[in-house]
Amino acid sequence: MERRSDKPIKVTEVCLRDGSHVVAHQFTVEQVQKIAQGLDEAGVHYIEVSHGDGLGGSTIQYGRSLVNEMALIEAAVAACKQAKVAVLLIPGVGTVHELKQANKLGASLVRVATHVTEADVSAQHIHLARELGMEACGFLMMAHSAPVDKLVEQAKRMESYGAQAVYVTDSAGALLPEGVRERIRALRDSLDIEIGFHAHNNLSLAIANTLVAIEEGATRIDGSVRCLGAGAGNAQTEVLIAVLQRLGIEVGIDLYKMMDLAEDIVGPILPHAQEINKGSLVLGYAGVYSSFLLHAERAGKRFGIDPRDILLEVGRRKAVGGQEDLIIDVAQEWAQIQRAGV
Amino acid sequence: MERRSDKPIKVTEVCLRDGSHVVAHQFTVEQVQKIAQGLDEAGVHYIEVSHGDGLGGSTIQYGRSLVNEMALIEAAVAACKQAKVAVLLIPGVGTVHELKQANKLGASLVRVATHVTEADVSAQHIHLARELGMEACGFLMMAHSAPVDKLVEQAKRMESYGAQAVYVTDSAGALLPEGVRERIRALRDSLDIEIGFHAHNNLSLAIANTLVAIEEGATRIDGSVRCLGAGAGNAQTEVLIAVLQRLGIEVGIDLYKMMDLAEDIVGPILPHAQEINKGSLVLGYAGVYSSFLLHAERAGKRFGIDPRDILLEVGRRKAVGGQEDLIIDVAQEWAQIQRAGV
Repeated sequence: MERRSDKPIKVTEVCLRDGSHVVAHQFTVEQVQKIAQGLDEAGVHYIEVSHGDGLGGSTIQYGRSLVNEMALIEAAVAACKQAKVAVLLIPGVGTVHELKQANKLGASLVRVATHVTEADVSAQHIHLARELGMEACGFLMMAHSAPVDKLVEQAKRMESYGAQAVYVTDSAGALLPEGVRERIRALRDSLDIEIGFHAHNNLSLAIANTLVAIEEGATRIDGSVRCLGAGAGNAQTEVLIAVLQRLGIEVGIDLYKMMDLAEDIVGPILPHAQEINKGSLVLGYAGVYSSFLLHAERAGKRFGIDPRDILLEVGRRKAVGGQEDLIIDVAQEWAQIQRAGV
Repeated sequence: MERRSDKPIKVTEVCLRDGSHVVAHQFTVEQVQKIAQGLDEAGVHYIEVSHGDGLGGSTIQYGRSLVNEMALIEAAVAACKQAKVAVLLIPGVGTVHELKQANKLGASLVRVATHVTEADVSAQHIHLARELGMEACGFLMMAHSAPVDKLVEQAKRMESYGAQAVYVTDSAGALLPEGVRERIRALRDSLDIEIGFHAHNNLSLAIANTLVAIEEGATRIDGSVRCLGAGAGNAQTEVLIAVLQRLGIEVGIDLYKMMDLAEDIVGPILPHAQEINKGSLVLGYAGVYSSFLLHAERAGKRFGIDPRDILLEVGRRKAVGGQEDLIIDVAQEWAQIQRAGV
């Protein structure tokens, strides 16, 4: 495989952040220590540690963490000899207060995450991170839902704020390989900073999409060991390393150590395996936020219609997080159309 | 996506054959009835029903079936209004006797499976199937392990025996997308009959590889609902249908019905979810038969070496089924090399 960039590929392991959703944010200090140590010894470059919804996410709305994330960050930093500890911050969920605290505890990279059309709100936190001497990246979520030129415009804003990389974040696992190709290619053509890619496996394309991203010049890649992430999980890190080795792309991560970590440490704490079930598949197919699933099921029951039809329509209208009210509107309209026999 | 063939795509569901491995060949008549009925109602074209190792596979060596496969074939035929029931036959495991019996019970397609370099042994059974008025396909297993020109030569033999389609069968889930592309393309350039593709998901590429195969002109595609197949499973049928719909490729299968079948009927009978674990990953990475795994683990223990190193070397030597002795030889050599400190 020919790569459009000759920079080394850096892997960010997200099982201790995106994977936090899978364990309902109940990671213990001991689990984080063991997993971070294993990832560090295997040679992973960055380990992201935060509530699943980023710093400050431990609330009744997003789900309370068992352990304060600052204690988990501290444990991960202590366990790492070479890996850097990263945090995720969604402005509005997390604040400058948490970012300063995480930095004081040793987190050295922040990924500031916004909806793909709302890069503006990342300015303050990217600025602050750079002032603190942290590495700062932009993380454009639901990247499938915006036209490519819009994505480029938003990424350029993040670059202008001082981001050192911008990620195409396929939050709903909705992108097909060609969609990844055109997005990464357009960013590579337009930005001077590194490009990243964060996959979800809802359509079983996380690894394949990640390969396309690397081919087109992405050098920051997210993986989750044992596929531990929201929905159907992310690009399974140990599988990704195996495939990259088969392609002759060396990223400096020990495959056997990653496989052992996945099997012996992470596997046993999984509450359920990361297969693609009806819920995760419909999210990827409709391209909607995972939080919409439960609302659509409730509305479907109330109006006597298939929740999948609601989610597909919500996806077509490109609803963003917080627009759960739209689900009721769509369900109501859909039920009326069905009754009218149209 | 541009397709190199304008023929309609026909899906063969293999959960009642390849998936038989997952349930240790313990399918009941009721399970087969329900699943076949669901697949038929969803619009699946072919449903393969056989022991995991094909007709006649119910032995001490391959694992005894709970129910005689002829009873399962009969149940599937009775449950189908439009779908055709297919069987798999590996010459030597199955015989003309079982093929005639399956045909009498209503199976109308046989896939005659041989190692990728041993197409010769399929002649008798393909001839017989055509005489019986059955549809007959060739199924070239471990297709990753032969050079492309060898694959073409072997496929042409199957075509000359009367096969109406030949499959590239990625038994070990070892093929990368470009490997699929060159193989399907070469067959499409060289044969007049249809080309098929059978994926395994050990490297998490089953869906992506299947898309590449379709792009290059494959029109016979295998899927397994809920990913129910050997190793890490096959191309998960309901996911494949969702992705093809997103690509605008209509195959005439009802997505919602497939999703419901996966969730409500197949999910509950799974003994474990079809995730990619250490075992299935190493098989895909090394490109070896799944039956080698246990032998390598035993030899690894005996000689004090990592079983993965044994499997990688066995993969490099392109061992075929039945060559389990080679595992001991490799382990012994490897241990000697390690002792010598080379």
